[in-house]
Amino acid sequence: MQKPQRTATPFLGARAAAELIAGQGLENCLRGMAKSIQNDFQRWHAFQKSSRLASHSEAGVIELMPISDGVHYSFKYVNGHPNNGELGLPTVMAFGLLADVRTGLPVFLSELTLTTALRTAATSALAAQHMVRKGCKRMALIGNGAQSEFQAMAFHALLGIDTFHLFDIDPQATRKLSQHLYAAGMNVILCESIFDAVQEVDVITTITADKTRATIVTPDMVRPGVHINAVGGDCPGKTELHPEVLRTARVVVEYEPQTRVEGDIQQMPASFPVLELWQVLAGHAPGRLNESDITVFDSVGFALEDFSALRYMHGLAARSGKLQAIDLIPELHNPKNLYGCISAKEQQPAC
Amino acid sequence: MQKPQRTATPFLGARAAAELIAGQGLENCLRGMAKSIQNDFQRWHAFQKSSRLASHSEAGVIELMPISDGVHYSFKYVNGHPNNGELGLPTVMAFGLLADVRTGLPVFLSELTLTTALRTAATSALAAQHMVRKGCKRMALIGNGAQSEFQAMAFHALLGIDTFHLFDIDPQATRKLSQHLYAAGMNVILCESIFDAVQEVDVITTITADKTRATIVTPDMVRPGVHINAVGGDCPGKTELHPEVLRTARVVVEYEPQTRVEGDIQQMPASFPVLELWQVLAGHAPGRLNESDITVFDSVGFALEDFSALRYMHGLAARSGKLQAIDLIPELHNPKNLYGCISAKEQQPAC
Repeated sequence: MQKPQRTATPFLGARAAAELIAGQGLENCLRGMAKSIQNDFQRWHAFQKSSRLASHSEAGVIELMPISDGVHYSFKYVNGHPNNGELGLPTVMAFGLLADVRTGLPVFLSELTLTTALRTAATSALAAQHMVRKGCKRMALIGNGAQSEFQAMAFHALLGIDTFHLFDIDPQATRKLSQHLYAAGMNVILCESIFDAVQEVDVITTITADKTRATIVTPDMVRPGVHINAVGGDCPGKTELHPEVLRTARVVVEYEPQTRVEGDIQQMPASFPVLELWQVLAGHAPGRLNESDITVFDSVGFALEDFSALRYMHGLAARSGKLQAIDLIPELHNPKNLYGCISAKEQQPAC
Repeated sequence: MQKPQRTATPFLGARAAAELIAGQGLENCLRGMAKSIQNDFQRWHAFQKSSRLASHSEAGVIELMPISDGVHYSFKYVNGHPNNGELGLPTVMAFGLLADVRTGLPVFLSELTLTTALRTAATSALAAQHMVRKGCKRMALIGNGAQSEFQAMAFHALLGIDTFHLFDIDPQATRKLSQHLYAAGMNVILCESIFDAVQEVDVITTITADKTRATIVTPDMVRPGVHINAVGGDCPGKTELHPEVLRTARVVVEYEPQTRVEGDIQQMPASFPVLELWQVLAGHAPGRLNESDITVFDSVGFALEDFSALRYMHGLAARSGKLQAIDLIPELHNPKNLYGCISAKEQQPAC
């Protein structure tokens, strides 16, 4: 009987991921993840890409986001349920997998709730590095929920932004965010309205959870030169920007076929011009042409960011011994003898 | 600070699943799973359905198979790599998830390698119950790999078939299968060729793994009245039946849009008539019109079968205390305070 091929799946749980990120330092992780995302977007054509597969219900959406570069395959499971807070649950929960394309064997299962917050923020800040005016210092944060600290810390880590104007319809969310940012040494300004918050800022980040066609940012709020990091319009029927804001802006998206359906540009005709992020990161097109441009990163989240994040976290976790092994896949002495797992006389430690 | 909502995910690993099935008895599990599949197919229109999302490579395929009935959502990750045996790995490996549609919270993560073998066999036998002639006793098994015992045991459990004609290009695979079937009290006949194996049988089961347009069953092998359970033609470019066999047969499929691309009927024009399994199980159309019909169940595997199997295994595992808890999703005191997981001073046992 031959020795069974090892099939145990290395697993990074939510507690272990939190310890890992806390141990490394959040800003270091955000920089590392941004680097990983940048490298992967620069080899855009190496990937087999598709829009995510969404299952919509009245309460929210559940999505699967697969991608492959022919060596690794990854997918993420993620939900978006705006009213989960009332049930004591996060709006967004996620986990995902890396697998070996050559055999299909899972090689890393991981929590992705925390990791998604980091990769979304890292992608926003990475895009902004190529789209903002020089010398940015101030950012408005509209929507102060679970993802907001990560956005702030990513813009601090990657762009040196240190002053944040906060607004949320829920004052408790704003209080929570302001305490965290203050403790992290940031300057914080609490605002009474969106209009109030966007005054004098270089960047406007919208990260609201309402599953409706909201108009968070209207043309009167947008000064020449501002960069809008629009993160919360990420589902059919869910938008944050007034169409007139988009019309006058230079708009960058992650993966055009998906963003046309899910992003803020779902409001615009199919001919509305956009750039893809990889074009900007690879140097094929500038993110900004001149200082007075209004720029928009219409971010919905793309599978490639999770691929990069999974590989980054896998590397970190493997080096720090934070991986647990789970038996997602049976270990067989003879791979053609699956039945041996259950035929009583053949019950062995390895299956 | 409020008590965090429990988010730990109940997990059924491969070893625990094997023990559970061995403890219950394989034939009992096959009957229970068939019942669960039948119930779900009978409420076909309650499901949000889609073809699976496949990522093809030279070595094989990795697929995601989601489905929802508005209460539960499930998906399966599954690969198909015909040459994995050479690397000591199973050809097919799988795992999957059940989630709550109302919140998106994962409620059950499970191995599905073993479970897929059971649900595929249970579906085949369930379809056959409605498609075979009366008094079936003999089945040919062409392809004696990892799934073959499960097919045999399901046809025994659900139809009383007790005599099996075996053929595989790999004699070791046939030896393994024959030993298992003999030990389970079946009558076993080892055959020299496919032609030899299909003589005098009531059912022909083809379950080969080659990722090519194979022609396992040709018209000269098929007598009037026979039922063909075609399981291994399940991928674009991967077929087992000669088109002429299909042309003369009454063909039942699981989910027509998917089978047109993946099943043996990929060889036929789009107008080639087929029935869907739910129509047969719900009594809308007979699986067989008369004793001399040639019938074909062109099985590729559909997400609904995994949904039913996951719910069945979840029930069994919960009742038998075989579930382990893993922290796939963080547990938060305040669901808007994800950052609290990693800000050092707030490190709590619950995240």
